[in-house]
Amino acid sequence: MLTLYYAKGTAALPVHIALEEAGAEYDLRLLDFGNKDQLHSDYLAINPKGRVPALVTPEGVLTETPALLAYIGQVFGAAKLIPETPFGFAKAQEFNLYLAATVHVAHAHKHRGARWSDDAASHEAMRAKVASNMTECAALIETHYLQGPWVMGEQYTVCDPYLFLVARWLKGDGVDDSAFPKILAHRARMEARPAVQAVLKHHD
Amino acid sequence: MLTLYYAKGTAALPVHIALEEAGAEYDLRLLDFGNKDQLHSDYLAINPKGRVPALVTPEGVLTETPALLAYIGQVFGAAKLIPETPFGFAKAQEFNLYLAATVHVAHAHKHRGARWSDDAASHEAMRAKVASNMTECAALIETHYLQGPWVMGEQYTVCDPYLFLVARWLKGDGVDDSAFPKILAHRARMEARPAVQAVLKHHD
Ligand SMILES: N[C@@H](CCC(=O)N[C@@H](CS)C(=O)NCC(=O)O)C(=O)O
Ligand SMILES: N[C@@H](CCC(=O)N[C@@H](CS)C(=O)NCC(=O)O)C(=O)O
Repeated sequence: MLTLYYAKGTAALPVHIALEEAGAEYDLRLLDFGNKDQLHSDYLAINPKGRVPALVTPEGVLTETPALLAYIGQVFGAAKLIPETPFGFAKAQEFNLYLAATVHVAHAHKHRGARWSDDAASHEAMRAKVASNMTECAALIETHYLQGPWVMGEQYTVCDPYLFLVARWLKGDGVDDSAFPKILAHRARMEARPAVQAVLKHHD
Repeated sequence: MLTLYYAKGTAALPVHIALEEAGAEYDLRLLDFGNKDQLHSDYLAINPKGRVPALVTPEGVLTETPALLAYIGQVFGAAKLIPETPFGFAKAQEFNLYLAATVHVAHAHKHRGARWSDDAASHEAMRAKVASNMTECAALIETHYLQGPWVMGEQYTVCDPYLFLVARWLKGDGVDDSAFPKILAHRARMEARPAVQAVLKHHD
């Protein structure tokens, strides 16, 4: 049995979708960020980083979104959620890494400036650059990475729910997402999937 | 044949070490950041993100440090640079992801503040928090992730050259690294490896 620790609408969303698409059996544990649940000692014993997602497996705890996505793809091989060749797998990892290390980080500068500075004026300055950074990220994905219909082409993979998370951020981050028709069409395609609809009920 | 695009002392260093440890045949292409080589159109045609590392493989280009490290581990399986089970692999990925998405990002706020704000005063404010953030990262690694003697325990993996890169940053980032004896001992163990010594000659 797997247990996913999540907060609504966070980086746990793609992992949750991947579990559902894989047909995995899993339990959910909802954390309330408003209540600072992620910093509670019970949770820090599970994930000392105080972040979500965390996945408790029979062998131990796993964290970091791209690591969880690859793990789900490998363990539930029959669902074919990751490319089979080392190069294909690496391309999927490359995409997910870009989302984790660059796009998620760019987005986090809107509300999480306190991670990188103690000065309130600088938080405002960081917020002011989020729209242009996220526009640049979306343009790179639209032009170079989203092959269509799915991120990796014909195969639906764990890259797709992760892109879906990012696509949901764009408007709120001040991005004119009508400039990115491939990303918008991908988002609509995701919203039509039963697994995605089932999971979103837990995130609203 | 593989070709590694790198700049000295950057995130390309662990990938370079992994290639050497794997016994791979590879070419090197050095970029000069002082000359803004990473933004030259020739390089952007290889990596539109304008960053290093990038690895040109017979099947195409790969970017993102943890994706390259996993790829090298998988393709050169005989070198046993990645754990064999899905859970072990995921733990290695988790470690590398933390370095890419949190530690490298924390470090980058020292000299790359312009990525996240256009305001010079806020760059200074970001720089001021680098030492405490990097100290927190080092403490988390020392306490929770570095099993010893190598990151993943008895097996030397692609996590080790990546931690080595971070360990080399600490002092310059204002971290009192004497507080982290396991990281220091790991760094010394890395410096004793012939592959590491051979690679460092290209990064000085
Ligand atoms: N690198 C991590 C980042 C995880 C992360 O930052 N999650 C956010 C939610 S999207 C979080 O837990 N924030 C809580 C906090 O900052 O206190 C990953 O990719 O999983
Ligand atoms: N997420 C990327 C980050 C790569 C990155 O930022 N590399 C730095 C060197 S350590 C770079 O190329 N900087 C050049 C620049 O910012 O212009 C990875 O893990 O490979």
